Amino acid sequence: MAQTAAKRRGRFGLAVVALGWGLGWCLGPAQAFDGIVEKQRFVLPSYTTEGGAVIKSVQVGWESYGTLNEARDNAILITHFFSGTSAAAGRYQADQRRPGYWDEIIGAGLAIDTDTYFVISSDTLVNLNANDSTVITTGPASLDPDTGKPYGLTFPLVTIRDFVNVQKALLDSLGITRVHAVVGASMGALQALEWAAAYPAMVPQVVAVVGGAAIGGWQIGWLDLWAAPIVADPAWNHGEYYGGNPPLAGLTQALRLVTLSARNWPNVDGDFGRRWASPGKDPRATLDGRYFVQDWLDQAAAGRAALADANHFLYLVKANQTFVAGGEANLDAALGRIKARVLLMPAEGDHIFPPETIAHQRDLLAAQGTPVEYHVIPGTLGHLNGIVNIAQGAGILKAFLDRPTP
Amino acid sequence: MAQTAAKRRGRFGLAVVALGWGLGWCLGPAQAFDGIVEKQRFVLPSYTTEGGAVIKSVQVGWESYGTLNEARDNAILITHFFSGTSAAAGRYQADQRRPGYWDEIIGAGLAIDTDTYFVISSDTLVNLNANDSTVITTGPASLDPDTGKPYGLTFPLVTIRDFVNVQKALLDSLGITRVHAVVGASMGALQALEWAAAYPAMVPQVVAVVGGAAIGGWQIGWLDLWAAPIVADPAWNHGEYYGGNPPLAGLTQALRLVTLSARNWPNVDGDFGRRWASPGKDPRATLDGRYFVQDWLDQAAAGRAALADANHFLYLVKANQTFVAGGEANLDAALGRIKARVLLMPAEGDHIFPPETIAHQRDLLAAQGTPVEYHVIPGTLGHLNGIVNIAQGAGILKAFLDRPTP
Repeated sequence: MAQTAAKRRGRFGLAVVALGWGLGWCLGPAQAFDGIVEKQRFVLPSYTTEGGAVIKSVQVGWESYGTLNEARDNAILITHFFSGTSAAAGRYQADQRRPGYWDEIIGAGLAIDTDTYFVISSDTLVNLNANDSTVITTGPASLDPDTGKPYGLTFPLVTIRDFVNVQKALLDSLGITRVHAVVGASMGALQALEWAAAYPAMVPQVVAVVGGAAIGGWQIGWLDLWAAPIVADPAWNHGEYYGGNPPLAGLTQALRLVTLSARNWPNVDGDFGRRWASPGKDPRATLDGRYFVQDWLDQAAAGRAALADANHFLYLVKANQTFVAGGEANLDAALGRIKARVLLMPAEGDHIFPPETIAHQRDLLAAQGTPVEYHVIPGTLGHLNGIVNIAQGAGILKAFLDRPTP
Repeated sequence: MAQTAAKRRGRFGLAVVALGWGLGWCLGPAQAFDGIVEKQRFVLPSYTTEGGAVIKSVQVGWESYGTLNEARDNAILITHFFSGTSAAAGRYQADQRRPGYWDEIIGAGLAIDTDTYFVISSDTLVNLNANDSTVITTGPASLDPDTGKPYGLTFPLVTIRDFVNVQKALLDSLGITRVHAVVGASMGALQALEWAAAYPAMVPQVVAVVGGAAIGGWQIGWLDLWAAPIVADPAWNHGEYYGGNPPLAGLTQALRLVTLSARNWPNVDGDFGRRWASPGKDPRATLDGRYFVQDWLDQAAAGRAALADANHFLYLVKANQTFVAGGEANLDAALGRIKARVLLMPAEGDHIFPPETIAHQRDLLAAQGTPVEYHVIPGTLGHLNGIVNIAQGAGILKAFLDRPTP
């Protein structure tokens, strides 16, 4: 039985193709899902946000890998990153080109072992990819049941706590009162730590990959810079573009910024260097002459923008900017709420959550007596190491998860 | 005689005020300028660019501190950064709020000792601050003598070599055939290394602060992201905005990106953290609710944009993107041309020229037998350490400059 995922990395680093996943593996009975993932819909007739607003008919997508045991105590919740979805592992169709983003660590015998755990992953509220047919989310692009029209900016602001509360309602609906762990990367790490701060009795341990327990001024500033091109795009029209032309230019520029911010120089210099966009067209000859890295940014961002919604991007920016775990005023207070066993996994060269800032959080947790482990994921990709190079942290992660919970 | 500059750092880190500079110091005869700097104009009736275009009546501003000796061999040329000007030291008027950007290292008895050296600093071609009355430059915002109208995008592309060639013509006009050193920060470091590659007989030594000998893919990508808001601003109008409304929104957003890129998280988290923009106005309450760091970015960028020209910004981006010292194809070849003694001074936490990339250049220079020294300027400010914390490298710099030239 094949227990490892062969992989091939494409030019752009993200084309991680797991061969054999759902394509004829001999699956033993311990393997609880056959590699074809079924996206499911969770509906809450009404949800009241942290800010006190009521949203009717909240819907989010979710999926699972592995089997919930009779005690219902073997669940691992996976929380996704800013531009992510619930698709953490496997494929929705056998011919789907890319598997889930953490396919290298979620599966039978892998770090997050689907022979042992019931792994559950959900789309967040205001998920960025509102135009991806596999995503189920509720946000500004959703129809307001009261008007039959998209909410636009009438959708209430939501927070990381709101994402967590909807996930909690989902777990409640499955009869899960205590998880084995919450594990997430980047904005998923924020959710994992928020889970620990908000529902300590439900969460004995959390894994925060390339993320931490509060957003600081550096990150607030960068999130603003990411959002600015959307607001500057006349097509944004204060969020009123549904049924018309969405602010695709602004959204694409926002995603160009996200794309480069999430990388690091050794990868970008190595992959693209000073290569020209077109072999015969010297970029030195004209003001708009281009290098390959510029075209790559265009293409990577355009592909992402086609599935994304600009208002959802802005709501996600706000949810991230306002984040301090537990709704506290600052990092120290946020960490004071966290009693779960914590594994922090920053990544080498991460410009969004610099490893030094995460090491500082480790030190504060340790000083207050919270059990904490720390492992830097190596690699050339910066923040993106937390997804693409997650296999470099698989051994640490597996050891952390397979010990008895505190 | 006071030989140190007392300083006070304002909220924004850049408000370095040297007290006493030109304000009543007891100046001995060895001090060759009285603290009031005279901006001068250098005119070339015609200049042919590296690309072969002819520009009539090229003008750049310049200034000097100290006295050129009879042998005319004591000149140190200072080359400025992307958003900089020739104003490296001193004041144009006694009541000027901020002195030159390197006032802490240029002066009598300082690292670049004006008692010993004739320090000369010039505005580049296509200087960003075309609307600053103290700046003299030639670029898209200049009047084309043939039409009497601003060049706009009919101005030919220029390169770092072109900046250097105009500086060389200026030095030629002063009878300087060999300098003591060329010293510059960031884009100024590019010019310093270009000087060494292009005119090795004239340049026995160079100091490259927070910059290197070639621009890589990471930097090309970021420069593109900086420029994009200008091009996206409808007011830019393909560079045709003179006499109308300039693309101030796009230019401001470009300068917001530059401003944050040039810093680092310890400074921004420390100075601004999660502070609100307005004490009574919770940023969590509304989508456009703001944190202080966001307003700071606005104000810092708006102040810079008021003096800047958008087309000049784009021409500078192009000049930087296309830079490889000596016009070579890659970094290895560029370094192969450099025989001068080199002092590399990257800065801690620099996201624009990461210290590791400069250490790599040191290793390549050393391997080819070029004498090279390397010192990381410490500090919380990232790239900006190369300006604001330059005093941290003053001792190293002074020792480097005061030895006999190779």
